[in-house]
Amino acid sequence: MDLPLLRLLPGRDRRVKGGHPWAYSNEVAMSPEARALPPGGAVRLEGDDGVKHGIWQFNPHSLIAARVLDREPSARPDAAWFRARIAEALSLRERLGVARHCRLVHAEADGLPGLILDRHGDAVALQANTAGMEAATPLVLEALHALLAPRTVVARNDSPVRTLEGLALESRLLHGADATARIEEGGLAFEMDLLSGQKTGWFHDQRENRARVAALASGAIMLDAFCHTGGFGLVAAQAGAAHVTLLDRSEPALALAQRTAAAHGLGERVTAQRGEALEALERMVGLGRRFDVVVADPPAFAKARKDIPAALRAYLRLARLCAQLVAPGGVLFIASCSHHVAPPDFADAVAQGVWRARREARLLFQGGAGPDHPVHPLLPESAYLKALLFQLR
Amino acid sequence: MDLPLLRLLPGRDRRVKGGHPWAYSNEVAMSPEARALPPGGAVRLEGDDGVKHGIWQFNPHSLIAARVLDREPSARPDAAWFRARIAEALSLRERLGVARHCRLVHAEADGLPGLILDRHGDAVALQANTAGMEAATPLVLEALHALLAPRTVVARNDSPVRTLEGLALESRLLHGADATARIEEGGLAFEMDLLSGQKTGWFHDQRENRARVAALASGAIMLDAFCHTGGFGLVAAQAGAAHVTLLDRSEPALALAQRTAAAHGLGERVTAQRGEALEALERMVGLGRRFDVVVADPPAFAKARKDIPAALRAYLRLARLCAQLVAPGGVLFIASCSHHVAPPDFADAVAQGVWRARREARLLFQGGAGPDHPVHPLLPESAYLKALLFQLR
Repeated sequence: MDLPLLRLLPGRDRRVKGGHPWAYSNEVAMSPEARALPPGGAVRLEGDDGVKHGIWQFNPHSLIAARVLDREPSARPDAAWFRARIAEALSLRERLGVARHCRLVHAEADGLPGLILDRHGDAVALQANTAGMEAATPLVLEALHALLAPRTVVARNDSPVRTLEGLALESRLLHGADATARIEEGGLAFEMDLLSGQKTGWFHDQRENRARVAALASGAIMLDAFCHTGGFGLVAAQAGAAHVTLLDRSEPALALAQRTAAAHGLGERVTAQRGEALEALERMVGLGRRFDVVVADPPAFAKARKDIPAALRAYLRLARLCAQLVAPGGVLFIASCSHHVAPPDFADAVAQGVWRARREARLLFQGGAGPDHPVHPLLPESAYLKALLFQLR
Repeated sequence: MDLPLLRLLPGRDRRVKGGHPWAYSNEVAMSPEARALPPGGAVRLEGDDGVKHGIWQFNPHSLIAARVLDREPSARPDAAWFRARIAEALSLRERLGVARHCRLVHAEADGLPGLILDRHGDAVALQANTAGMEAATPLVLEALHALLAPRTVVARNDSPVRTLEGLALESRLLHGADATARIEEGGLAFEMDLLSGQKTGWFHDQRENRARVAALASGAIMLDAFCHTGGFGLVAAQAGAAHVTLLDRSEPALALAQRTAAAHGLGERVTAQRGEALEALERMVGLGRRFDVVVADPPAFAKARKDIPAALRAYLRLARLCAQLVAPGGVLFIASCSHHVAPPDFADAVAQGVWRARREARLLFQGGAGPDHPVHPLLPESAYLKALLFQLR
């Protein structure tokens, strides 16, 4: 039996013909047959003009009704197809030299819409953010076993975007005896538990940015605000920072960071401080503290579009406080992972904040996530991470 | 005798108070005394409210009437002041590990508005793009001699922006016996003549991008279009590319590239092809040629605001042609140095071009110039270089 046929509405094929990887619910013909299709199943998509647009995953209950799997109409998304796509993603990470510890699959950009795979050595954390990838999870697991034979696979299906697809939020072990994992980066090993930590356990997206900051931190007194398990601060300490203050609200995250520091003989050079970062920064400013390097990598300030103005005010304030803490000639790294906040707006808020601190600054670098987080060229808004690196006079 | 006083007009101090490094001619009080000041001289800038805004360079004949040198009203831009500013810029490049071969001073972001200094080992190319920096050139030279004792200093004062300041276009030797220079990058040495080449002789801004491409070019068949003296192609060849086709319209640039290749034993792996790049690419597409890595780093397509639509069409066409030449799984690097073209518009034109070639793509990296080309945070539009790196399916 062939895959069901889904048609685009007359005159509503412009986006799909332009190469966009999505079709919205008001672009497809919602016949009774279409409505009755199982959420996430594969369909053949055709225009009203009979043009074949390839194989898509369809969810009749989602605003983003269909997502392209393969432009080739004869493709069939079976186990071999998933294995080939994941092998291709793995091959790119091998070429980039990051295959053991990386974002292995980054959704649409890797031709696997809605699927995120983070590889932490012999453990994999999976996020299926669409009904299509929820349905295809057994095929994804089969491919992972064939390609990587992971010790552990964990589903971190707790992203709120799943509710848009009618999916429940849940995290669970899919394979293996436990959810532990170990990341190697910057000459350090970070131990983690993939079920209890934030997101998929490690923020691979900042790998290159951590290295860039560490390269400027030799001999530095450093502050790592919103440090989570200490990635920026500990990589910099290992690279030669003289002292790092780790600041976070999470006791378990700080404890993990301290254990990592101790395990690598960095304990003497690392101080952990628990607190709400913005309040703690305000206090440090009041005390006249200064650091050679300040990093602020907060969680998303804007969770929704309506939060944007408040988020921009918060970024301005954060930038002002951090700039006040930077010693003359020192370095400020500040990032936003709010995908609702556009890069120029974030850069402007931060520039304003730095000026409110009356600091002249050089913007040395503006970037995003590393190349193992590719972006689909026609979904530029999916480049959520914005990073700015300044030197302050 | 103290520096002349220049006043902002009532109610026109918002930009200056907000930290912007420029005051426009309609923001300053153009009294007869002000009009009579020598172009480029230093002034004390004050608001109508008596607030002191520090020391600025003033040109009564330019739309950008004043540019900040120092927010501190007691500062005096003498030889010691210029030496301190250039020493600070040098110190940053040392920290970045690029001090011998770099953009040593990048205008406003380095606190020296309108001044560009490119260091090529023991030679320096200078651009004074404002009347202020034209007038201060002797102080800049004094500072360079004190800090670097360069063998050669060349003025490349041939940028059309000088006409906006009422300055003539001219290039000449300011110091030394000849205008030769030698750049070391990627394990290669590039010889050049600072008076006869393009711009200041070497595009330091793409250093990190050349390294990024080279890291993906091991064993690759590569095309370097608009290659100039072969930076991208030769750095990749040295890093292990199997074969590089260099394409440029300039016979002297290609000859220089071939001499560089021969001097490093890369001659066998490098072919130079002279031609108009877009026409040559069209012919290669017609012949069905394929490359593992394609680089296109053209000169600015938009020299003025009115050129933007035509430039975007040209970038789309360039991206389409290049994408057609990329082998499956191969890499495309494409850049724009048109500062009139905004980053999202460039990215969109390129994405459209890649899709017109019917190629699915991953955007691996989007960036700009290296950190030795810092940007003033309140002049984000001065980040002229836009670079995109894709993998194509």
